[in-house]
Amino acid sequence: MLSTMQDVPLLISRILTHGAKIHGTSQVSTWTGEGEPQRRSFAEIGDRAAQLAHALRDDLGVTGDDRVATLMWNNAEHVEAYFAIPSMGAVLHTLNLRLPAEQLAWIVDHAADKVVMVNGSLLPLLAPLLPRLRTVEHVVVTGPGDRSLLDGAHARVHEYEELLTGKPVTYDWPELDERSAAAMCYTSGTTGDPKGVVYSHRSIYLHSMQVNMTESMGLTDEDTSLVVVPQFHVNAWGLPHATFMTGVNMLMPDRFLQPAPLAEMIESERPTHAAAVPTIWQGLLTELTAKPRDVSTLTQVTIGGAACPPSLMAAFDELGMRVCHAWGMTETSPLGTVARPPAHAIGTDQEFAYRITQGRFPAGVEGRLMGRDGELLPWDGESAGELEVRGMWIAGAYYNGPDAEPLRPADKFSEDGWLKTGDVGTISPDGFLTLTDRAKDVIKSGGEWISSVELENALMAHPDVMEAAVVAVPDEKWGERPLATVVLKEGSTADFASLRAFLADEGGIARWQLPERWTIVEAVPKTSVGKFDKKVLRRQYAEGELDITRL
Amino acid sequence: MLSTMQDVPLLISRILTHGAKIHGTSQVSTWTGEGEPQRRSFAEIGDRAAQLAHALRDDLGVTGDDRVATLMWNNAEHVEAYFAIPSMGAVLHTLNLRLPAEQLAWIVDHAADKVVMVNGSLLPLLAPLLPRLRTVEHVVVTGPGDRSLLDGAHARVHEYEELLTGKPVTYDWPELDERSAAAMCYTSGTTGDPKGVVYSHRSIYLHSMQVNMTESMGLTDEDTSLVVVPQFHVNAWGLPHATFMTGVNMLMPDRFLQPAPLAEMIESERPTHAAAVPTIWQGLLTELTAKPRDVSTLTQVTIGGAACPPSLMAAFDELGMRVCHAWGMTETSPLGTVARPPAHAIGTDQEFAYRITQGRFPAGVEGRLMGRDGELLPWDGESAGELEVRGMWIAGAYYNGPDAEPLRPADKFSEDGWLKTGDVGTISPDGFLTLTDRAKDVIKSGGEWISSVELENALMAHPDVMEAAVVAVPDEKWGERPLATVVLKEGSTADFASLRAFLADEGGIARWQLPERWTIVEAVPKTSVGKFDKKVLRRQYAEGELDITRL
Repeated sequence: MLSTMQDVPLLISRILTHGAKIHGTSQVSTWTGEGEPQRRSFAEIGDRAAQLAHALRDDLGVTGDDRVATLMWNNAEHVEAYFAIPSMGAVLHTLNLRLPAEQLAWIVDHAADKVVMVNGSLLPLLAPLLPRLRTVEHVVVTGPGDRSLLDGAHARVHEYEELLTGKPVTYDWPELDERSAAAMCYTSGTTGDPKGVVYSHRSIYLHSMQVNMTESMGLTDEDTSLVVVPQFHVNAWGLPHATFMTGVNMLMPDRFLQPAPLAEMIESERPTHAAAVPTIWQGLLTELTAKPRDVSTLTQVTIGGAACPPSLMAAFDELGMRVCHAWGMTETSPLGTVARPPAHAIGTDQEFAYRITQGRFPAGVEGRLMGRDGELLPWDGESAGELEVRGMWIAGAYYNGPDAEPLRPADKFSEDGWLKTGDVGTISPDGFLTLTDRAKDVIKSGGEWISSVELENALMAHPDVMEAAVVAVPDEKWGERPLATVVLKEGSTADFASLRAFLADEGGIARWQLPERWTIVEAVPKTSVGKFDKKVLRRQYAEGELDITRL
Repeated sequence: MLSTMQDVPLLISRILTHGAKIHGTSQVSTWTGEGEPQRRSFAEIGDRAAQLAHALRDDLGVTGDDRVATLMWNNAEHVEAYFAIPSMGAVLHTLNLRLPAEQLAWIVDHAADKVVMVNGSLLPLLAPLLPRLRTVEHVVVTGPGDRSLLDGAHARVHEYEELLTGKPVTYDWPELDERSAAAMCYTSGTTGDPKGVVYSHRSIYLHSMQVNMTESMGLTDEDTSLVVVPQFHVNAWGLPHATFMTGVNMLMPDRFLQPAPLAEMIESERPTHAAAVPTIWQGLLTELTAKPRDVSTLTQVTIGGAACPPSLMAAFDELGMRVCHAWGMTETSPLGTVARPPAHAIGTDQEFAYRITQGRFPAGVEGRLMGRDGELLPWDGESAGELEVRGMWIAGAYYNGPDAEPLRPADKFSEDGWLKTGDVGTISPDGFLTLTDRAKDVIKSGGEWISSVELENALMAHPDVMEAAVVAVPDEKWGERPLATVVLKEGSTADFASLRAFLADEGGIARWQLPERWTIVEAVPKTSVGKFDKKVLRRQYAEGELDITRL
């Protein structure tokens, strides 16, 4: 029996035209570092996205599913690229500007990017790379920056604003197949080559609806969202698309991601929501403690990308900023779980315990836990296994291998098509996920597992500890044992014995799990997206670069 | 270029299994008229929906896209049917129990329903009809009621609870095509045969996400929704599906839709949200005025199905119930627009003016206004035309004509596939729709249009007027003129001249639009879904059944 409903595809152009028309007065404000931010209404962005599409097609010859890369901060021009490129049928490829040059070049080459759009401020990064980017025919530069750095480049260089000038402000967006490629993002893979996830119009559209659901971020046109999470980091968690769907204003920090300008823009622009990884937020907290600002409008903060230490969440609670924990990854678009406490826990002692979990799955995402022998584990809040997920905005493969076929490595995808997340954790009977570790970071001590994340959270609750990372190191007797790497706050005189005692007495860590190897570092090494880079710590330990104290 | 995302279909079974697992403790409470309501958790409903599917398949032989009809009030068993039937691949056909027997028989026959599920309390309605329902092979009865009424029926009669007993509480829900038929609902067409709309799994899934978006109803598991709008009325506005997606509790009134039990259940069950057509709400207001109850938890009320008179909205505001106006129809699933005021209007004098519009389109729905000569009209807040809509949960046809092909009547669908809503109105530059009339109810007086709805709203703002309906009647000089049909409040002594003066002085109605024909009636005739039935009024006038005063 046939349904009689209209067959209207889920397309990014639909989000764009809706936002520009129905929420035309909503704004994208981009911080410029001096005076008033650049303001652009959704209606203007709609016009300019159409102009950009004309320029890409007519002046640069972008056709079919050509890849157009962006090497850009969060700003209005990047939002225009977000909409114009997929809406015209091409594929947006966001480049992570924090990756080593070697990896960036590999990725551009692998994706066969034809055009690179770049912020002028990032030309010093692109210029030395460009000679190695053999597929790139055009570079489009936007905003201030020294163009002469590109002199002699093989690619044609264009000025963004000149390209747009005089182009029509409407575009007859094609009626694409909703399953066609819209955008791609490479994971900053810790092992092997980077891997590309290719989002479809459908997956992005559905993900945007989910972000706008009250159980997720649930913002409206009364809100302004400070989008700290980079647009090159998993679609800025879907915010540019989700905001255009419902008229949420965006505040874009451009390159001003240091704690002081962030505090300044919160005080002057008065956002109601922010989205960022914990490390950025930790820095902001230090800044606000040193120099208080009026941040009272900012009542909702979505934190993801890495687990938010409970101590950090509690500190933000005290500032009146309610942190909402979320979990996801490049392969999950990224919304995988959101930690809104269940109704019965609100206002009780249990509430905080729910908030520091990774949260619940939305209807679009199914999760399951797999044991070490591939068995399905129960949701009992105790059985720990690797999380696998399935859903409408979850990757089922990576972008092409050498044979131009999608890659489905067995360590990343199950035989029945679920994504193996590489995260280890438990799920409670009422569906709340608690991640205890990355599968590769679990410490296997004498046949038992020790959670590095649990030790880190307990350490970071100590008043003298700024950051702490715990990694497994080889041990003759136990196989592996934890090494505690600590960043102390300025002026602290805490010693390892007292930290160890704190773990046992205040942190509730079992005796046999307490680290005996300790070291002080100036900063925990971070990956390009701000996560602790434990691979580096393990290597430093192996090569004897760390000054270890044994208790 | 291929997307690498998993291809997971949008299915109702996914909503069911999600709700039963992740929101297993959320509840459906059904009012029984005596004592404690019947309570059933989402987990239990998940189990019972699986049992029902087994029974339908194994005991009743339901296969493929067989139609299973429901002649039921809002209750937990109807929710079980809502999920079990589409999830197993069959088609849920909700029957409007307020339709004349003749129409009901026609509809069951047209849909070729194989099974009818019926509440025992509705057997007096079904029994006399049953002999004429030649496609119906099985009747499943749930709840109290006199079974002997079915004695001698050609169909096999089953007890719902007996069917479920002993059946497995899990079911291997099939991986269906998301575009396949899930549910059907016939419009109570005012002209010609009733027309069936066939919703797909995809359209219902997307609609449910939209209902859960903060810009729409946006409820969470902290809420309890009093679902007054019948489940046979456009999927109860999507609430049974939407609530299972996010864990919103449902309070179901069953057959207790009179003002007194509604007030009682609000006081004792403390819902936070309700959804109903204006006429029901008008009755509740009278009840609460006569006998105040503690209804303080009920702060959000979604009103649709017909325009809510501004006076009613204002009266509910005073009670602390914030009315949110929405517009839709059977063909739109039904969410077409929602009147949440834009951010800039909140807290200002403009806010109420925005709230009494029909609202804005969500991203999934596009709207346009067509002039009398088929020209596209501007969104200027002044140009009035017929609203046409397009979108992911909008009908593009009706269920089969005589040749078993979908019906696309030219007065209902444009050549490019948009739905002609039959509603006339304007759209403001910022996208707010104001409906002024049904196209067929517009009064064409001397080449100008008079809005019957505007006159009705102005009349209903008079303190002595309970209800008012205005219809066009033939006029020798002007072609058509308005006839005002008024229901006065008890004890009122208002006369027509004073009402007419009120329209001009307080209602701001232009002199030439003031009705000269007036009549008092005891009640405005209503359609089966509670809308003013103007067809009846026009007929009564034509046949001289109304006592007309001419001013």
